[in-house]
Amino acid sequence: MFKVPIARSDVHIHLKRKDVNILFGKDYQLTNLKNLTIPGQFACSETVSLIGPSGRINGVVVVGPERPYSQVEISITNGLTLGIDAPVRLSGDLKGSAPIKVTGPAGSIDFSEGLIVAARHIHMHSSDAAELGVKTGDSVSVRVPGPRGLVFNQVIIKAGDHEALEMHVDFDEGHAAGIEDFQEVEIIL
Amino acid sequence: MFKVPIARSDVHIHLKRKDVNILFGKDYQLTNLKNLTIPGQFACSETVSLIGPSGRINGVVVVGPERPYSQVEISITNGLTLGIDAPVRLSGDLKGSAPIKVTGPAGSIDFSEGLIVAARHIHMHSSDAAELGVKTGDSVSVRVPGPRGLVFNQVIIKAGDHEALEMHVDFDEGHAAGIEDFQEVEIIL
Repeated sequence: MFKVPIARSDVHIHLKRKDVNILFGKDYQLTNLKNLTIPGQFACSETVSLIGPSGRINGVVVVGPERPYSQVEISITNGLTLGIDAPVRLSGDLKGSAPIKVTGPAGSIDFSEGLIVAARHIHMHSSDAAELGVKTGDSVSVRVPGPRGLVFNQVIIKAGDHEALEMHVDFDEGHAAGIEDFQEVEIIL
Repeated sequence: MFKVPIARSDVHIHLKRKDVNILFGKDYQLTNLKNLTIPGQFACSETVSLIGPSGRINGVVVVGPERPYSQVEISITNGLTLGIDAPVRLSGDLKGSAPIKVTGPAGSIDFSEGLIVAARHIHMHSSDAAELGVKTGDSVSVRVPGPRGLVFNQVIIKAGDHEALEMHVDFDEGHAAGIEDFQEVEIIL
């Protein structure tokens, strides 16, 4: 039995340099508020607002460091608030994803694409992947115990030498399964 | 393979006569806006607001007809909005459930209990239950297909001669599984 800690990802945004310049000001540097489990990733003090046809979400945390592309990750519940039907995608798979308007203290951007519902996934070190006999892009199932217990199918593996073991779900998924952040769940091969 | 249509339940409230009087006025009659699948149950035109320590939810639909007890059903996401940690319970199992303030056009009520996250369940006619070999209170698992596919465990059977076949999940659960209302899912015994 292979166990993995699980955590909920709330709505957040990743930004490339050019978009940091527009939203926060030229040469603005993002502030590391809190390191995340995945090495090098951190929640920033900076937040933006998302604006959709039917609503607005304020206080959306920027996750650093800067990336080569900007990307907004929401839940389906967030999509209903905004009035936008975003596709379920892996991080970085943005071609044909949903449009979104983002505003920061220094300016706004109308993204023609970049809004996704993140597909649930498990980060793991290459050595864990080898032990499990899986590789990046493989799907596994994951059993969550408890009174709201369920089995997530189609959980995508993201393995690498700079990864740490953690499963990520969005708030809808976390609440549907009644999870507490960092509780252990079980990979079913 | 036994298939069942699934539908999402949004936040809603059931009311007893005495509480209709307080919230909407003495002898006020609830208005049937739309019949639901379960025979005799209907969404009303009337709505109330829920008020919690950290937030408020407006436009909460009353589901009729009147019941012997008042009960508010929310998702965990709604609970975060309100700032209330409500227990996962079957409908009617309210002892020790969470408190909630409810306001209507004619008055407000501070319920000392009655707020729950409804446990996912399947309504079915007694004849379906007999065919499946299950009875009220039994748990089954239900497989949802698709790109967000998962298996809900701990799905409670509610069988009776006045029931119709439908599985109910809350919005968190529906969104986690990427369901469309009334799509078919599969009971696993």
